[in-house]
Amino acid sequence: MMLRSIHWRKNCLIIIDQTKLPQKLTYLCLSNVREVVEAIKKMRIRGAPALAGAASFGLYLGIRYSKAKNYLEFKKELDSVSHFIGSARPTAVNLFWALKRMQNKAEENREKPIGKIKEILLQEAKKILEEDRLVCRKLAKFGSKLIKNNDRILTICNAGILATVDYGTALGVLYEAKKQKKSFKVFACETRPLLHGARLTNWELKQNKIDVTLICDSMAGFLMQKNMIDKVLVGADRIALNGDTANKIGTYNLAVLAHHHRIPFYVVAPLSSFDPKIKEGRFIPIEERAPCEVTHLFFKRPIAPKGIKVFNPAFDVTPQRLITAFVTEKGIILPPFKENIKKFLNES
Amino acid sequence: MMLRSIHWRKNCLIIIDQTKLPQKLTYLCLSNVREVVEAIKKMRIRGAPALAGAASFGLYLGIRYSKAKNYLEFKKELDSVSHFIGSARPTAVNLFWALKRMQNKAEENREKPIGKIKEILLQEAKKILEEDRLVCRKLAKFGSKLIKNNDRILTICNAGILATVDYGTALGVLYEAKKQKKSFKVFACETRPLLHGARLTNWELKQNKIDVTLICDSMAGFLMQKNMIDKVLVGADRIALNGDTANKIGTYNLAVLAHHHRIPFYVVAPLSSFDPKIKEGRFIPIEERAPCEVTHLFFKRPIAPKGIKVFNPAFDVTPQRLITAFVTEKGIILPPFKENIKKFLNES
Repeated sequence: MMLRSIHWRKNCLIIIDQTKLPQKLTYLCLSNVREVVEAIKKMRIRGAPALAGAASFGLYLGIRYSKAKNYLEFKKELDSVSHFIGSARPTAVNLFWALKRMQNKAEENREKPIGKIKEILLQEAKKILEEDRLVCRKLAKFGSKLIKNNDRILTICNAGILATVDYGTALGVLYEAKKQKKSFKVFACETRPLLHGARLTNWELKQNKIDVTLICDSMAGFLMQKNMIDKVLVGADRIALNGDTANKIGTYNLAVLAHHHRIPFYVVAPLSSFDPKIKEGRFIPIEERAPCEVTHLFFKRPIAPKGIKVFNPAFDVTPQRLITAFVTEKGIILPPFKENIKKFLNES
Repeated sequence: MMLRSIHWRKNCLIIIDQTKLPQKLTYLCLSNVREVVEAIKKMRIRGAPALAGAASFGLYLGIRYSKAKNYLEFKKELDSVSHFIGSARPTAVNLFWALKRMQNKAEENREKPIGKIKEILLQEAKKILEEDRLVCRKLAKFGSKLIKNNDRILTICNAGILATVDYGTALGVLYEAKKQKKSFKVFACETRPLLHGARLTNWELKQNKIDVTLICDSMAGFLMQKNMIDKVLVGADRIALNGDTANKIGTYNLAVLAHHHRIPFYVVAPLSSFDPKIKEGRFIPIEERAPCEVTHLFFKRPIAPKGIKVFNPAFDVTPQRLITAFVTEKGIILPPFKENIKKFLNES
């Protein structure tokens, strides 16, 4: 598992350009906040936990050459850079969680010289990355208990190495299960419109020698009906306090289908994906993206008539009653979710 | 509605090459049975009722230069050509229905000179086309009663002009409703892998000035959850005697989602789509198509890593309990389906 979707080297944020996969494994060196925001918007880097890392370093890059003479001036710049990064994508809460954490860190150290605060923020960003690595390992350990020999697992989008710092959430569970010598098969939904399942999940599972089969999103019901799926594992972009879960568009389809076929449906996510400000899923902002993602494959060849109307929500919300359990770095959260999520968050 | 997906002119079968849409409206002139079979296999022509037309003319083209000296010799050729055409695609029953009808017609006229039988078969093929036109008009009349003002209708694949001779099944209902000055909106699932929704349904609805919005297949649940869909209308490739319905892959997903959201789910199909030999859906043969349909868009640019495993069933079966009603040329079939389908078929 030498692949790192995001790391810091020589004063630059190095990321894999995920829009180029699986054709090319290209690294980008981002040296200022505009480049970071562009990379987030264009989904060169994506996945809720990876976005937390990108946002933290983005914030540091945005203030590292600050000429602020006092904390108030500095704070103003910090807020403005933070707002700029926050505007890149609205749904994944980890991005906002990381920005808030960085801002709090600055606040705690407001008495220190600006140069020192900058240094502290860089360390904090590095800590956020390092913590994500550990959190994913812990998630994976807890989640791997759910995987049985000969399981056939369905997943959507990419909740793997490429969505985190290096191990993944839903796919991290599978890497851990493989390490434990369990044998299982994965079915990966291609995940239209941007094909993160086809392009990214297949690529990283294949690299890690996990048995994976690609299907179109529309085939999930067929597989469940034919008794070809034992459980569904997905990541999350934001989880409300009652357990309602925003994740890549198509996740809700799978949850309804799994419910209909009595197949367990697990959400694997760090506690930083739970939003303490959001009580229910209907309050989660859902990003709508450009029609050309649907009408033009890779923004090139058109697949629909010119000028056609398109609706392109990037996420959907799965209501908590369709979720079997949450896998977090502190353990598995079972229903009743409202009560149990509260306990987990208060303990952390 | 001047568009004709399939017609006979100057001893040739003229079809629209549907693989070229929406970029180009190209007509192909098929003058022998090999060309017809190639066009069916490659889905240059598709849609259960249109396949009936293609199969009938294909059969005629296959025997028109026959040098058979007697009916037995001729019959042998007829069987062999029929088998050749039948091998092109296994699921849509209308293709087999048409072949059987043509063979029966030959049998009825076995005493006549071979030249005369050939002539009769050509007339029968023309009759099959003409009947499909009338059947679609009747379907549309019955189905249009289901469409209310301000309805928001979801459909998958293409059950329109391009899938029939010229009016469509599910989309024919919409053309008729529009003629009756009803106002409604359509959401078209793009229908992976071959994008028959994005490419064909959007194209023909737009041409006919029907308000249509394109979505990815994975977005259907989101729309239903947000109360944006009032009913689902789909076509069919083969219907069992109990009402279980094979249709384009992804239809079953929609049926489960519609059921979960208590949204009516209608199948619009001619009686020739009901297979009197198939009691239940599990006996319907499901075509599996080549992996490259999923991994390579338009068989060109790869969207998945090289050598990835793919599962590509072209159809799924929706169990009858998820279907609200069938719209046929003899009227609307309501539950209990087993009893009522029997009545409709016996009357016809």
